[in-house]
Amino acid sequence: MPQPYTPTSRTRLVREADRAVYDREAAYRILDEGFLCHVGFVVDDQPFVIPTSYGRDGDCLYIHGSAASRMLRQMKDGVPVCVTVTLLDGLVLARSIFNHSMNYRSVVILGKATLVDDPAEKLQALRLLSEHIIPGRWADSRQPNERELKATSVLRLPIEEFSAKVRIGPVIDDEDDYSFPTWAGVVPLEIKAGTPINDSRLDPGREVPPYAKHYSRRR
Amino acid sequence: MPQPYTPTSRTRLVREADRAVYDREAAYRILDEGFLCHVGFVVDDQPFVIPTSYGRDGDCLYIHGSAASRMLRQMKDGVPVCVTVTLLDGLVLARSIFNHSMNYRSVVILGKATLVDDPAEKLQALRLLSEHIIPGRWADSRQPNERELKATSVLRLPIEEFSAKVRIGPVIDDEDDYSFPTWAGVVPLEIKAGTPINDSRLDPGREVPPYAKHYSRRR
Repeated sequence: MPQPYTPTSRTRLVREADRAVYDREAAYRILDEGFLCHVGFVVDDQPFVIPTSYGRDGDCLYIHGSAASRMLRQMKDGVPVCVTVTLLDGLVLARSIFNHSMNYRSVVILGKATLVDDPAEKLQALRLLSEHIIPGRWADSRQPNERELKATSVLRLPIEEFSAKVRIGPVIDDEDDYSFPTWAGVVPLEIKAGTPINDSRLDPGREVPPYAKHYSRRR
Repeated sequence: MPQPYTPTSRTRLVREADRAVYDREAAYRILDEGFLCHVGFVVDDQPFVIPTSYGRDGDCLYIHGSAASRMLRQMKDGVPVCVTVTLLDGLVLARSIFNHSMNYRSVVILGKATLVDDPAEKLQALRLLSEHIIPGRWADSRQPNERELKATSVLRLPIEEFSAKVRIGPVIDDEDDYSFPTWAGVVPLEIKAGTPINDSRLDPGREVPPYAKHYSRRR
């Protein structure tokens, strides 16, 4: 059961506040549908934004650290980060340019990320990440060995301070514009998986597993 | 003709340097295929990462400012930002967990963003943004009026300091792992447009225009 949540001055939406969602369960549904996040951190007053993958374990986000080297070199623990997940659902073509929009769902999490040091927690976090991206794959793969575990970095971010923003639904035009002679509506967008491509060195006769054949982010 | 480019110490890739692309034209192809970016900026040592749309005009990126209010309140001009664009092309399912990866193309731009003040440049930038997202739509829409132009903020970011990172192609497993008994291969991912949804107040008989009916980001 997620804990109740009140936004802070840093996460209370100022613009388009009607699109704000401060409900933890709604935010978690967005986090669980996505798997690519953009992590922001600061080095010498310069922000950096790096894409990477993540998984959620209750009120904790685990972030794959491959992209975090620049940040981790700076500080061993407690790096202020912003993790943002955005799901794009469509283009909203209004009659006026001004009312054009996008349908999207996004979550912004602020906090201090720390390195996962404990090998058991790291292994558990990697399994979580893998199952988050493609459920069923972990058990079918050659498991990480000690050397690989050491070579992988994982960050832990408590989901304490966050906001979500959601725009769904149809065009909203100014009343005067409804007579403007043009098409208006929504072009839905979705990430779709294509037919899996067998590796060239695959054992002959090995079938594509269902989790790859029917891959979908719909939750 | 794009200017030649040499990475700085801030944009030279440290990890997975074999995936680095410092070629301006390759970076521009990525920027031109995407239209959603994640903008990073800093307020009181806290990084923020916000999704928004963008368009490119030569060596200049225009960023839609709807999400920039928090940043713009801080500083009128010359805000250090990082703009990152990520295109996700597939899941790479290796035989070992460690060699699992994603196919993706990303661009990271560092620089100082400034507000576009001149109304003519702002109008031109908005046209560019609109045409970048859905070519042909601008001419079919009710154009922005003075009030709407004032209510819209656009940021300008010169594309001077950047890097791109690209991972394409098949699974790369350790030689010892090729005998591990599992499926391996790539699950391609792509953003696909669905059938456009007519607005409920559409003029009867008005057809969906080709730019909405056959929407695609493939360039």
